Parts: sequence; structure tokens; C-alpha cells
Amino acid sequence: MAKDITTRSENYSQWYNDLVKKADLAENSAVRGCMVIKPYGYAIWEKMQATLDKMFKETGHTNAYFPLFIPKSFLSREAEHVEGFAKECAVITHYRLKKSPDGNGVVVDPEAKLEEELIVRPTSETIIWDTYKNWIQSYRDLPILCNQWANVVRWEMRTRLFLRTAEFLWQEGHTAHATKEEAEAEAKKMLEVYADFVENFMAIPVIKGVKSPNERFAGAIDTYCIEALMQDGKALQAGTSHFLGQNFAKAFNVQFLNKENQLDYVWATSWGVSTRLIGALIMTHSDDNGLVLPPNLAPIQVVVIPIFKNEEQLNLIREKIEPFVKQLKEKGISVKVDDDDSKRSGWKFNEYELKGVPVRVVVGPRDLENNQAEIARRDTMTKETVPFDTLAGTIENLLAEIQKNIFEKARAFRDSNIRTADSWDELVDILDNKGGFVAAHWDGTVETEEAIKEKIKATIRCIPLNNKLEDGKCVLTGKPSKQRVLFARAY
Amino acid sequence: MAKDITTRSENYSQWYNDLVKKADLAENSAVRGCMVIKPYGYAIWEKMQATLDKMFKETGHTNAYFPLFIPKSFLSREAEHVEGFAKECAVITHYRLKKSPDGNGVVVDPEAKLEEELIVRPTSETIIWDTYKNWIQSYRDLPILCNQWANVVRWEMRTRLFLRTAEFLWQEGHTAHATKEEAEAEAKKMLEVYADFVENFMAIPVIKGVKSPNERFAGAIDTYCIEALMQDGKALQAGTSHFLGQNFAKAFNVQFLNKENQLDYVWATSWGVSTRLIGALIMTHSDDNGLVLPPNLAPIQVVVIPIFKNEEQLNLIREKIEPFVKQLKEKGISVKVDDDDSKRSGWKFNEYELKGVPVRVVVGPRDLENNQAEIARRDTMTKETVPFDTLAGTIENLLAEIQKNIFEKARAFRDSNIRTADSWDELVDILDNKGGFVAAHWDGTVETEEAIKEKIKATIRCIPLNNKLEDGKCVLTGKPSKQRVLFARAY
Repeated sequence: MAKDITTRSENYSQWYNDLVKKADLAENSAVRGCMVIKPYGYAIWEKMQATLDKMFKETGHTNAYFPLFIPKSFLSREAEHVEGFAKECAVITHYRLKKSPDGNGVVVDPEAKLEEELIVRPTSETIIWDTYKNWIQSYRDLPILCNQWANVVRWEMRTRLFLRTAEFLWQEGHTAHATKEEAEAEAKKMLEVYADFVENFMAIPVIKGVKSPNERFAGAIDTYCIEALMQDGKALQAGTSHFLGQNFAKAFNVQFLNKENQLDYVWATSWGVSTRLIGALIMTHSDDNGLVLPPNLAPIQVVVIPIFKNEEQLNLIREKIEPFVKQLKEKGISVKVDDDDSKRSGWKFNEYELKGVPVRVVVGPRDLENNQAEIARRDTMTKETVPFDTLAGTIENLLAEIQKNIFEKARAFRDSNIRTADSWDELVDILDNKGGFVAAHWDGTVETEEAIKEKIKATIRCIPLNNKLEDGKCVLTGKPSKQRVLFARAY
Repeated sequence: MAKDITTRSENYSQWYNDLVKKADLAENSAVRGCMVIKPYGYAIWEKMQATLDKMFKETGHTNAYFPLFIPKSFLSREAEHVEGFAKECAVITHYRLKKSPDGNGVVVDPEAKLEEELIVRPTSETIIWDTYKNWIQSYRDLPILCNQWANVVRWEMRTRLFLRTAEFLWQEGHTAHATKEEAEAEAKKMLEVYADFVENFMAIPVIKGVKSPNERFAGAIDTYCIEALMQDGKALQAGTSHFLGQNFAKAFNVQFLNKENQLDYVWATSWGVSTRLIGALIMTHSDDNGLVLPPNLAPIQVVVIPIFKNEEQLNLIREKIEPFVKQLKEKGISVKVDDDDSKRSGWKFNEYELKGVPVRVVVGPRDLENNQAEIARRDTMTKETVPFDTLAGTIENLLAEIQKNIFEKARAFRDSNIRTADSWDELVDILDNKGGFVAAHWDGTVETEEAIKEKIKATIRCIPLNNKLEDGKCVLTGKPSKQRVLFARAY
């Protein structure tokens, strides 16, 4: 393969890193663990944001903005929450620099020390519930359905572009409800919204489930999740929606007068997806030639490449393609015509394959004579010749077909990589030699879950929603179990 | 006046604070100087973002994202830049918390000290130019036209909601060019984009100009600006666009091979507007009854309030207004029908006045009989009765008229508050007793500029573009001057 990309079979991890860089999606910055999202990568994120934002608003949510900083003491209010996040916090201790006494550069001004340190938000439950306290007096003030688009920081020791970075971009929904039932329904509803988005826009099939206690969000009663499978057989958590019970309301003393005129603590949910999804997008669909982007999220859906030897030929082609480009734009399809004469056509073919543009249209002098164009689809790398007058319609249908095809392909791969194991050896064998999800019995204890993780680096990805109940024995301890759960090695 | 809002004549500053809070735009958070932007305030920001983003893209810019953190040493690379920002930097010194030895909460883990402190970005020139270094080798890589939507932090000692907050939201454009001329043209072009946006969407008249040396951005060769006038006679800088010369390219060693195959430093611009503009929006148009929002940015453009005594009446009204509401929505006008029967109509009238909804439509049983509705405009507080069949068209025209009217009103106020002063006493007298902009002669030195600021707290807001040249004498020193500049007291 060309383009200086390591192949997947050679080194999957290196293939991913090469692709992120060569396709101009992101790069590492001078700040450890923080990435620069380049224009092409950010354009994908913008499409994801626009789609999700619309879905959130259609389900009654509004956006708001809460502070970047959280007073240190807030984190400690919810015991499990602080346990989960304290070890990866960026801490602000001072608010001023001054000239270095030796004249070289600046130093922290020791006189500008904060009375209480501030934490750069790793997630915003604490600062938001401190705010909600002032917004909620009675059941009439509920529900509150807020979402925030923001950056957050978790000081990860081992980082990878998109998948695990110290700073990442995300949205975090935070809702407040008068009843447990309503909050639980909200958490489940948002899981459905995420599943809808990830499957129908990102073309990534997911399994909806609930996390085991060990994998829950720090401070949640239940964490619902969608789990995806990457081409190397590792799982990736693509989104989570938490039912928080009254934990944060109690931590921040948020009470309300209910319809019976009694004081009660408010019920909460939070839910989020992040730029990590771009990592999932890459690893689900792309190949050794570069990115494969689902048409619904591709910044450029169609690229038109004229083949010409001189200005005269180019002008004839321009004239010919103009109405068809206009038709595509009217259909809301994003088209780029690349007639840059400083680059060879072969270079362009490679480049747009690398960038994952779903459909390429090539028009040369002979095509003009025959009143046709050659179209190539990125997902299957197949080509066909299409008469000019049906081109726009053909491409519109083709985009829908590509969207469907890459989803079906990913689903077939995922489905063929869900296996059952009835013994410890079988579990280990499948994980070591085949990867994917393994449905196996587990005794339901935190200890066993931790022991399994320790021994074979596999985690319980989720207990699928509407899971089939069946009697069995835990693959590690042999203790009785009522259902299989999904194990995998994961990102 | 109702609504617990201090009047402007009573206390302008308190009126502003009351309004921001009562209209649900924003509030102070538990973190000193950081605000919570509430859903209604954020909805205005979203409309501003969407409009500006479109304008940036139409002028060839793409969005990207750069790290929140800046290594301390980066700030020192550009001498004036560090001078300008060092005193207000939030500094990260540690990356982990641990359980407090006394068992109460968490403390900073002294073992998790960063080798080099990180600064929360006050602006991103340094980290971006460090990144551009790797993107630019030859003139073929230029121009780079990036914009970033982000949060930034400047540790201000005295903060006010929207106008001056420790954390604020903004966009910052950062462009790189092969020639000085191209960079200067870019800086001026973006000033025009800002002026267009602020005048035509926010309905705030601005004066375009260039800053005097004292008021320049730290690190710029020239700072272009748009200046607005608030109702209390104080000026507000509404946006800036900087020609940075080769300062940052030199600081970060960003060189390129030009068309003549010679190494040269890259030319730069940066430009930004922030949530501060929401403060300008409020202070330009609003009155003692609450917000007055320009239709182009109002989250709700039209509110429909049915007056009814029972469900039967409400149903008749609903049936009647349905087609008209649909017509408005088809025209892209945002409409809210408030038929909440737990609130009195009088309360609703007050509430939507407070929230600045441009047009209110009231429909009661008698209006049904007469096949008409009462519409009230927020800007002039006038009402008229309109037949139902022409209602949608009338409202569409009315929204355009309101947009125009509030701009004209603000312009008339601004124009009547630009005065000339030919002596020191005259300058002081106008500033003390009338406010507004004062066009006066200045000898062009930094010393005089600083002396004037020290004596009377007035600054040179700008030297207007295409300023008329005329001989005169500096109002402070009597030294010769070639043109008048605009002085004002400012936010």
C-alpha cells in the first residue's frame, strides 16, 4: 500500500496512529497528552456536534455553560466521585506570573497563591449541582434538562490521539427530576439517542447495556452504555448515560417541595459522548488505503476530479459538470471540485482515498465525448460509468447505499465476533486468539470482576439490555450465575 | 417599573446586573469571577456563534482546536505578549490529588508536581504558532486560515457578568500569510466582518478604527477595533483584529521558502470576539422594562399568548392560531405559544417584556369573533390590531422593522454623543457631564496617552479609519497634532 501507512495486519496500533496523522485529523501538541484537532478532523466533529445537538433539542434539552474550574472541596462532597477522579486532576494553585528574578522569562508569583485550589473540570456534576441548588425550589422547577458542549481534562498517563487524551471535547447532559422513575427513563432515553446517532450517522453498530459495578461512573447508581467493536477485536465504549439517583442532590443539598408539599432530594442523570468517538469511527471502517467515512458525517461527500491537458479542455469539463454540481448542492450534498493543476490526478486519487471521501467522480475528455463520467466508491473501491444526465440521482442513491453498506459490513464483523465461552480456558482462548466479545457466566461479585481483569486484562463491557436469563456457572469461580455478560479487551 | 429591576436613571450599573439575572441570562458561580451562562443567555450566544461561524466560513476560514494549556515558557517567547498576560494567568502546577492525611477530603499530591507549569490559555497565539511551525514549509502551505471556538481565562480582579469574567467564551482566528500586504488585508477584512455582524445582527452601531500604541494587543503591530457606545455614555470595545507582523513567527521560528526560494518569516493576524458582546447587546438596547433583543438574535422572536377562561375557549384559539404559527415557522421565524394555565396573562406579558421577545401576539375570545389579533412590539411598546389573514406577513415585516428601528435608535444616540473638544477643560467637562466619545487632538506620544488616562480615566478608544487630517494642538500638552482621536471612558 502507498501513503506511508502501516497496514493493519502489520501493526494495527501503528496503522491507527499513521492514519490519524496522514489524513490530517489530529496531531500531538507541545503539551503532554493534549492534541491539536486539525481542520479536517474538526470538520467531522462539527458534523457530529450539529447532528447530536439537533437530537438533544428535539428531546427537549437546552444548552448552557458552566465554569471550567471546580473548587477542590466540591470534588470531595460525593465520596465515590472524588475516588474516581482525584488521581487525574489538573490543579490550579496560583493566578499570576512575574518576571523571573534572574531576568530569564517568568516564574509563578508565590504571593498569588489561591486560598483553595481549583481543579480543571474532569466532568461537571459537582459544579452543576452546586448551581442547580439555586434553581430548584419546587417540583414546578423540574425537570431541568441542560446540556453543555465543553472541554474537560483528565490527566491520563498513557494517551493516544482521540482515544485517550488529557484534554478532550465532549458534551455532558445534566438533568434534574422530581421522581426516580422520570430520571431512570431519561437516562435510558439518552442511551437510545446515542445508539441512534452512533448507528445511523456514524454507521457503527453498538450493543446497549448496563455496566457492572466496577465499571460504573464514579457516583452513579447505574451506568448505561453503548459498546462497539473495533477491527482488531477490541471493544470501545462509545457513550454512557448515568442514572445518578439522589447522590449529587444529597452531596450538594438540593431539595425540592414535591406535589405533596414535602421536601425531597432531586433525582439526577448525566450522559456524555466525546471526541473519542472519532477514534471509534476511524477504527471501525477504515482500511489500509486510508479513512472510510460514512457519507452522513463526511466533510466532503463527493469529490469531482477533471482530467485535462490544457485550459481549453478544463473549460469544457467545467461547463459540463457545472449543472450536475449545482444539482448535488441543491440536494444538500457537499461537493468539492479539485481542478488544481499543480497536482497529478494519481496523487489526487490517493489523497481523497486517504481522506475517506465516499464518492469520487472523474471526468476526462473522452467522457465528454461519451456524455458520461466515472464514479468510484471509497468503501468497496469499485468503479462504474454513468451517463451525465442521471449522475446526480445516481450519486444521491449511492451515498445512501454506502452509508448502509459500511454499517452492514461493520455489523457482520461485530456479529461474527460475539462468541460464548463456558469455561475459563475457553474465555482465555477466545480472547487471546480471536478477540471480540465473549458471552460468559459471572458470579456477579466485584471481586471476581477484578480478579478476571487482573488475570487476563479483560473487562465486563456490559450486561446487555433485555439480556436472556439462563442458569450457569461463573467461568472463574464456578459459583452460580443467572445470565451471561459480555467480556472483552477494550480501548 | 415592575420586575424588581433598578431603573437606569437610578443606578445604571445595578440596572445591568439586575437585568442579567432577572432575564435569566447568567449568574455568578461558586468560582470567583466565573459565570454560569443560563439556557436563555446561551441561546443568544448560539445564534451569535452560528451567524459568525457562517461568515467566517464564507470568507474562507475553517475551524480547528488547539490545547487549553500553554507551557509557561511559551509565554515568554514574545516579550510584549508575556508583559501583557503574565499578571492574570491561571497556573497549573500539579496533576493529581490524594486523600488528606487527616482523612478530610483531598489535598494536592506534592509528588505530582509538573516539571514546567502550564498556563490556562488567556489567548492562543503562542501554542498555535508553535503548531504552525510544523505545518509551514513553503509558500504553498500558505495562507493558513484557522478559527477556534474556545474558552479562555484571564484572572481579572474586578469582574462583571459578560463584561469582564475570569473565564469567557470566544472565537479566535489565527492566520498565517506569505506577505505583509496579505496579512494586513486579512486583519482589515475581519474587522469588516465584525462590523457587519455587530451592526446588522446585533443592531449595535460601531466606529471602526485602529488602536493607539498603549491600547494595542500585547504582541501586535496594529490592533484594529470596533467601538460601540453604551446608553450610559461609556464606550465598549466590541471586537479586535490584530496585524501581528512577524512577531510570533520570529518568537517560534516559523520560516517558509517564498516564491523566490528564499527563507522568510511568516506574517500573522489574529482576531476575536467574545461573550462580552452579550453585555454590549444588553446595554445598547434594553430599557427599564427589561431586555430589548434584535429580532436577528432573539431566541424567541414571537410569543403568542392566548387569553382564555376554559379549555373550550383555549381549543378554539388553538385551532385559529395553528395555521398562522405554521406560516411563521415556515418563514424560519421562531414562535412560542404560551398557553400555560398556571400563570396569569399579566405575568406573562411582564415576563416576555423582561426577556426582550420582539413581538407579542395576544388572542382572546373577542379577537376570534372579530377575526383579528393584537400585536405588540417590544422596542416601542406600541400595539395594533391586525386581521388574522395578514398576520404572518405583518409580523415578518414588523421583525425587519424592529431590527432596523433599534439600530437607528442606537445610531442616533451614538451620533449625538460624539463631540469635539479643543481644550483640556472642554474634554474634562464633556466626559464628566455628558459622556460619549470626544474627538480631540493628541500629540501622538505614549506618555501623553498615559497621563490622560491617569488624570481623567479616559482612554483613546481609536483613531477612526479614514480619519480626517487637520492641524491642531494636543489638548494636554499643546504640542502639534495632525488629527483628532476618539477619547472616552470605557468598559
